[in-house]
Amino acid sequence: MKPLKLAITPGEPAGIGPDLLIGIAQQEWPVQLVAFADGDMLRQRAKELNLAITLVPYDQDNEHTLPAGQLFLVDIKTKVPVISGKLDSENGHYVVETLRQACKKNLDGEFDAVVTGPVHKGIINEGGISFSGHTEFFAHESNTNDVVMMLATEGLRVVLATTHIPLAYVAKAITFERLHKVIHIVNTDLMLKFGIKKPHIFVCGLNPHAGENGHIGKEEILVIIPALDALRAEGLNITGPLPADTIFNPKYLEQADVVLAMYHDQGLPVLKYKGFGASVNITLGLPFIRTSVDHGTALDLAGTGHADAGSFNLAIEKAISIAAQKE
Amino acid sequence: MKPLKLAITPGEPAGIGPDLLIGIAQQEWPVQLVAFADGDMLRQRAKELNLAITLVPYDQDNEHTLPAGQLFLVDIKTKVPVISGKLDSENGHYVVETLRQACKKNLDGEFDAVVTGPVHKGIINEGGISFSGHTEFFAHESNTNDVVMMLATEGLRVVLATTHIPLAYVAKAITFERLHKVIHIVNTDLMLKFGIKKPHIFVCGLNPHAGENGHIGKEEILVIIPALDALRAEGLNITGPLPADTIFNPKYLEQADVVLAMYHDQGLPVLKYKGFGASVNITLGLPFIRTSVDHGTALDLAGTGHADAGSFNLAIEKAISIAAQKE
Repeated sequence: MKPLKLAITPGEPAGIGPDLLIGIAQQEWPVQLVAFADGDMLRQRAKELNLAITLVPYDQDNEHTLPAGQLFLVDIKTKVPVISGKLDSENGHYVVETLRQACKKNLDGEFDAVVTGPVHKGIINEGGISFSGHTEFFAHESNTNDVVMMLATEGLRVVLATTHIPLAYVAKAITFERLHKVIHIVNTDLMLKFGIKKPHIFVCGLNPHAGENGHIGKEEILVIIPALDALRAEGLNITGPLPADTIFNPKYLEQADVVLAMYHDQGLPVLKYKGFGASVNITLGLPFIRTSVDHGTALDLAGTGHADAGSFNLAIEKAISIAAQKE
Repeated sequence: MKPLKLAITPGEPAGIGPDLLIGIAQQEWPVQLVAFADGDMLRQRAKELNLAITLVPYDQDNEHTLPAGQLFLVDIKTKVPVISGKLDSENGHYVVETLRQACKKNLDGEFDAVVTGPVHKGIINEGGISFSGHTEFFAHESNTNDVVMMLATEGLRVVLATTHIPLAYVAKAITFERLHKVIHIVNTDLMLKFGIKKPHIFVCGLNPHAGENGHIGKEEILVIIPALDALRAEGLNITGPLPADTIFNPKYLEQADVVLAMYHDQGLPVLKYKGFGASVNITLGLPFIRTSVDHGTALDLAGTGHADAGSFNLAIEKAISIAAQKE
């Protein structure tokens, strides 16, 4: 059997992404890990970290895995030399190019998944490129209208009905159509990518106490309950809406394959508290598998050897387990 | 030294409040626990639970504590007999009357704290009484304009800038004035009631990622940061605004005496997940000490012996520790 191929984009070159990838390559993997990055930058960073790294030019026809200390490389040059911890907007195009090439090879079916390190949105935009995030970029490049953000840790998966929008806009963004679409994406991807036969989806209300029968907001009655009823009529297995401060009770989590939160800060604080340092971001709805770290560029730690590879490791492991399940 | 006096209102008589109180009275307490409830109802419930209870009429001049199996009682009659698990709107007046008498004796200084069991707001309102919650009731009865809801569990206290309002109204409710007032109440009560000399208050942003420098909502820049800066200029020790999905990181919680969440579902899911079954509700800003269970009436469990007294026990212990610290 051919080994799985994972495209790894370490992201912002001045951040901890390269450090984490070099650290991860110190062990042997049963798959091909292929860095989409600047080889000189990686070698320089390895030197700063006092780690050995050998970069093997990626070739589509290679079917072997590598020993510890080696990484396959698709070499993409930065515009200006990278200094650990120092952002440079001149390298914004480079970052986006690594994502574009990784995305293309996944769309072509040459790769089995893409795993992304942290990027710095601000510096990419300062470099004159409109970029609102990995998820949006991959959706656009793959001509996908709707994707769903999932964060997962041991024992808990959380998906979001809305993501990075101001809180003031959330209530209006929760529509019948959105919930219907999001829950179908979640249900389909839990079956196809996670191998769950009939996913049991737990859904939060929008308002405190899930609206308490309309006493604290009407969206549950007017929007959420009708949407869930329509999905149940289509055969989906859905529980809710439940209050967000009781849905994470272990007795519910035992039954839930996933919890749908209506917005970012309703679902992610518990997930990150529970998963501390060990959660992974998974994009549902894309035509390929994409996982990501759950943290930022941590510029102050780049080149120091103090960055924690927990989430990057988990992102790779999760991509492998999803890809292996799909085979 | 005289024992502390705690007024205990078991709340909705058809719910698990009476069960929990009878259970709690099976052990000896170093304080006077005084039930504000219908004595016949308590005796009937004890019979259903196969527990012994002796009710001792409360007398202001009594200064002794009671052995296990006994409770002091301020007898307040229900209008109609109580059936475990069956709500009856005829008894709404009774529930409110127990709160009123307990409140009055606390305002008079005869008692050291009030500990409340769960009420059912819906049935009280059906009984023709406008009642929006314990906290609002005590605030009104004590002529207090502003109170703050705190939930506490081992290792974490969370206070809320807004409580039981629809999510769509939250952003508008977060004003400079509200934050200034709420944080002063929290700071003062942490000093006076919790004995913390210089409370360190951690504050969440309103938007995802605390607005990411204005990219995801402007309230942090326009409202929250100016309010926190003003409070810092007055000498308060405040950290934030921080993203809600990172503020509960153990490295922050070690330093935080309290976390201020901007709204209900931003702060309470983590607290209840962390505190599962062992968190307590404390009202800050009242002229007396008030603690409460963090759960509802659980009608289906009334009279069964299966109700979990964890939160009620903790509410009593927390009231005792706050009152003892104040002495």
